[in-house]
Amino acid sequence: MKIELENVLPKDIEKRSFEIITKELNGQIAEDEKASIIKRVIHTSADFEYAKTLMFSEQVVKKSLEAIKRGACIVTDTQMGKAGINKKSLAKFGGEVYCFMSDEDVAAKAKENKSTRATASMDKAALLDRELIFAIGNAPTALIRLYELIQEMKINPALIIGVPVGFVNVVQSKELIMSLEVPYIVARGRKGGSNVAAAICNALLYMLDEER
Amino acid sequence: MKIELENVLPKDIEKRSFEIITKELNGQIAEDEKASIIKRVIHTSADFEYAKTLMFSEQVVKKSLEAIKRGACIVTDTQMGKAGINKKSLAKFGGEVYCFMSDEDVAAKAKENKSTRATASMDKAALLDRELIFAIGNAPTALIRLYELIQEMKINPALIIGVPVGFVNVVQSKELIMSLEVPYIVARGRKGGSNVAAAICNALLYMLDEER
Repeated sequence: MKIELENVLPKDIEKRSFEIITKELNGQIAEDEKASIIKRVIHTSADFEYAKTLMFSEQVVKKSLEAIKRGACIVTDTQMGKAGINKKSLAKFGGEVYCFMSDEDVAAKAKENKSTRATASMDKAALLDRELIFAIGNAPTALIRLYELIQEMKINPALIIGVPVGFVNVVQSKELIMSLEVPYIVARGRKGGSNVAAAICNALLYMLDEER
Repeated sequence: MKIELENVLPKDIEKRSFEIITKELNGQIAEDEKASIIKRVIHTSADFEYAKTLMFSEQVVKKSLEAIKRGACIVTDTQMGKAGINKKSLAKFGGEVYCFMSDEDVAAKAKENKSTRATASMDKAALLDRELIFAIGNAPTALIRLYELIQEMKINPALIIGVPVGFVNVVQSKELIMSLEVPYIVARGRKGGSNVAAAICNALLYMLDEER
């Protein structure tokens, strides 16, 4: 078998990838402000299912970009998510990325409360005196705790990126978030991941890079 | 709509997830030493396609576990992959995880050679005097460079985890690796990712944890 490589310059690989994605989507999605988010998620997953499963609350892109410009910080539920987010782009607006999952106080609280560390790390985030975007790519228990904290008026997120992946309470946790009046971007169903969470953050950040 | 949560204790979530995966696989895969790798990839992606697309070279699991026990190091092509690999489990055997993508000398070499940083970081890895496992979840150019380095006898990997994701030369780069006599675990097709690369590393590491 002859394996033939496509001749694309390093700087053009991403552009060429997005061209292929746009072509294969074949008009399935509207070319509006949500399109670059959907395409970046497909770019990071090679999974076109996201064209159908990504759910956006009313005006969420506009609201999210405004929050980032005001210096909102991002809280993730994995070190992988944190590693994948473009922290330099966020820092231009004064924002930082937090992940509390490995913190000793979070581990202790989780043990004390018989909860997950993801739950305890949302409680820790609720104490931050910053405008917050949550990028949840792993733990449905993080989304469930955010749902409770919002109901108890203990937190008021600028955006919840709800894309945990998995089999236990993942589907339900996403539906809980979508039942609220909070700005959200959610991948309905079981799929998602830290890579998807980071891709959505980066899609928003790159929109602002282009504006500058 | 009533959203009902399944009542599973934090410590049992992973176990319950694997039960669901095993049930839904419904005998599609053999319950051999490869099964825990396939299941962990499905666990990290909620994508059952991997039951069909994950390709294993002859005796690769046995060979990989032996390499880890000898203190092999892991080289990844993303900080996300590095963040996701269980470094503590690897360290028990003397191994470390490297990612050279953000290194200044790699950026300089890539610019000089008009290559990608992934290509340059494989060249840097080839100079390491350690037994190496490559976990490539992002850049097909990393796999293509590994293919060349192996042909040139400049490197002799203990294992190549070839799971880049995307649209330009991704499919081809994986076929190149599978055309060699090197131990490999490859996700045939476009899909993969840093999360998948890390999941495969961790599946191997957890097999050894269970042995101890």
